[in-house]
Amino acid sequence: MNRNDKTARIAHVFSGTFVHSTLRAAVEILQNCVLGVDDKGKIAFIENHQDVVSLSEIWGFETSDIKQLGQYEFLMPGMVDTHIHASQYSYTGTALDLPLLEWLNTYTFPVEAKYKDLDFANNVYTKVVRRTLKNGTTTACYFATIHTDASLLLGELADSFGQRALVGKVCMDCNSAYPNVKPVVTPRFAPSCSSSLLSELGEIANNNKLHIQSHISENKEEVELVKTLFPDCKSYTDVYLKHNLLTDKTVMAHGCHLTDEELEIFRETGSAISHCPNSNISICSGMLNVRNILNHKVKLGLGTDVAGGYSPSMLDAMRRTIDTSKALTIQDPQHKTLSFEEVFRLATLGGSEALSLDDQIGNFVVGKEFDALRVNVCVPDGPIDLFPGECPKVILEKFLNLGDDRNITEVYVAGRQVVPFPDTK
Amino acid sequence: MNRNDKTARIAHVFSGTFVHSTLRAAVEILQNCVLGVDDKGKIAFIENHQDVVSLSEIWGFETSDIKQLGQYEFLMPGMVDTHIHASQYSYTGTALDLPLLEWLNTYTFPVEAKYKDLDFANNVYTKVVRRTLKNGTTTACYFATIHTDASLLLGELADSFGQRALVGKVCMDCNSAYPNVKPVVTPRFAPSCSSSLLSELGEIANNNKLHIQSHISENKEEVELVKTLFPDCKSYTDVYLKHNLLTDKTVMAHGCHLTDEELEIFRETGSAISHCPNSNISICSGMLNVRNILNHKVKLGLGTDVAGGYSPSMLDAMRRTIDTSKALTIQDPQHKTLSFEEVFRLATLGGSEALSLDDQIGNFVVGKEFDALRVNVCVPDGPIDLFPGECPKVILEKFLNLGDDRNITEVYVAGRQVVPFPDTK
Ligand SMILES: [Zn+2]
Ligand SMILES: [Zn+2]
Repeated sequence: MNRNDKTARIAHVFSGTFVHSTLRAAVEILQNCVLGVDDKGKIAFIENHQDVVSLSEIWGFETSDIKQLGQYEFLMPGMVDTHIHASQYSYTGTALDLPLLEWLNTYTFPVEAKYKDLDFANNVYTKVVRRTLKNGTTTACYFATIHTDASLLLGELADSFGQRALVGKVCMDCNSAYPNVKPVVTPRFAPSCSSSLLSELGEIANNNKLHIQSHISENKEEVELVKTLFPDCKSYTDVYLKHNLLTDKTVMAHGCHLTDEELEIFRETGSAISHCPNSNISICSGMLNVRNILNHKVKLGLGTDVAGGYSPSMLDAMRRTIDTSKALTIQDPQHKTLSFEEVFRLATLGGSEALSLDDQIGNFVVGKEFDALRVNVCVPDGPIDLFPGECPKVILEKFLNLGDDRNITEVYVAGRQVVPFPDTK
Repeated sequence: MNRNDKTARIAHVFSGTFVHSTLRAAVEILQNCVLGVDDKGKIAFIENHQDVVSLSEIWGFETSDIKQLGQYEFLMPGMVDTHIHASQYSYTGTALDLPLLEWLNTYTFPVEAKYKDLDFANNVYTKVVRRTLKNGTTTACYFATIHTDASLLLGELADSFGQRALVGKVCMDCNSAYPNVKPVVTPRFAPSCSSSLLSELGEIANNNKLHIQSHISENKEEVELVKTLFPDCKSYTDVYLKHNLLTDKTVMAHGCHLTDEELEIFRETGSAISHCPNSNISICSGMLNVRNILNHKVKLGLGTDVAGGYSPSMLDAMRRTIDTSKALTIQDPQHKTLSFEEVFRLATLGGSEALSLDDQIGNFVVGKEFDALRVNVCVPDGPIDLFPGECPKVILEKFLNLGDDRNITEVYVAGRQVVPFPDTK
């Protein structure tokens, strides 16, 4: 309860139930607690409610300013979407009838070409930022397109709506334009990049200590194609390794068909995997064995992979992660199914680790930035029915299985309230 | 355009886009049409809008009374949930960590015992009827519990909210108490019924021409158990066949592990399967190959199987049906994935066939009862973003993948508007 930073003032204090993950516990439920956020957006304290009076004196806030969470409310960390194609959002929920390589040619490439038109880009990017924020995605790792202006616009929109974001294909010299929006070096995937382009991107990333994102081993046809295109490389993973693209700031989407040897390279380099189960099922790419990834101590977050995945919601990503794990259990009863608690962690703390942002976000730890969702499972006209005697764990489980954006009544990024949107408050 | 029934008056006329299934087309999209519903709740006509003036003269309605659907609206048939445990609704979205037989003992049986308390039953049954109606389930085939009073109450509640329902375990002499609520003979499943009980139920059903519902071949352990319990029967299907429980008014949930020989018995007897993919994945029961069922010409509808399935929404049942089909394609690329159009049919016309109600409901055919959803993909604060130039098929696909109860603005059963609820209008 010491106050280390005497310069910061308290901007918000919440009292009630807090749910988050820690390194030890997939889900920790803190009841009767108070959490303070300073005016720099960082978590200043999280303590027992019984100490509220002395906390108010130490930190200089009025107890009357405390936001009291109701019986059916809790705060949880904002969700981290580790892989989402902002540029594909316009056809989300459609065009799911082809496997990856045909799907790219038929739907993706023609639409992405339209982003040379900034009006088109502005319409789609505004909608995807608002939609994902409304669904509780406080951090998004975006793929944009090859168009620099449109990619910059995506960063500008994320900043203006207050979303934390990594944006792929942004111009590389705008590194510090927005505090919570960062560029990410983004080779689309090995089959669409020459060896010399991959090398240059690896060099840029390493010289500037930038984040890196790409795709790997999404479906079997693609894995075979990479073998043909890069005959000197031992594996798909080896292609990226050889071009210095596997660092501890790298996140690779999918990895459905990675071998154990390849996973060892991920572990050694500190590279992460973004698991996108809706996409993997929707375009029939494969089923990632997340348990095996975790056993290999490889960092893993969840992604929506809009529009290969049809849902922009990380709640959907969590549900489909469990589905895939259960489908693997149906095939092999020895497979240890993921629990909903583990999947909650993957969507929050795991995502922050996968994007190498876990020193800043991911759970409620003093000194981290306050990215959080205020959840109310009992909103009027909401999707959840409650029954007497339900404990916080059951309420969390109902939210994860049945909740939607109606239950996410407030969203905070770096201490700033970004949902409800200013124009609708 | 002839008027056959001169006695009926027109109660509603809608103009705009209508989407339904026919015997030939999985999805038929009718644009610029008008549909009239008579005061008995039956579809009186569905014609081109250009004939609206003569229609109004023939049928005697004012063109000013026509309900005009907007650009982003359409009418579709109400959805048919062919398998839902009303009594398990209180723990929907929770308790999904055990396989079937343990799951029944741990969660299901203790909760079902509470239904001797009518207050408890009233609370849960009110919520499940409202929730499913709000999500567009115009017909529900319910499992209740062994408690006669509570089961009658469920029938009463369905009637009072205006839902069409089959209710299992209701007292057998209340056959005609409500026009749209019918009893259904409901052995829980073979392992929990003696041969003599099964025989008696078969006799009651056949003597009274009643609907029959039960479970079959949900998971492998259960299939083995049935072999042990009924050593004289050739298969799980043979158990029900021998006890006269397979008729053309029978619907059996799951069937994940039925053999082709068993499917032939289903086809010959006209019995139907209720596919409950959320449940099958959530409690790791298995994955039904729907394509194989359809190839065998066995009738098939979709079910939520609350609370083995965590979602009460038939939109979820459709999405999980596609997921399961795609998971089968991932395992075997030769598997012919179900299209969203086919799944739409299963949730509407297919469900009505599975419950032997296709002479009354399931699509927009003159003389059938008007069970319909008014869908608006563009409601304020709704879950769907639209982009310029989207055709009705794309709008339908977005609704099926991304929509929820917010998009279902009106629900009609037998011509009566039942959503919005009278208490919230
Ligand atoms: Zn992707
Ligand atoms: Zn069931």
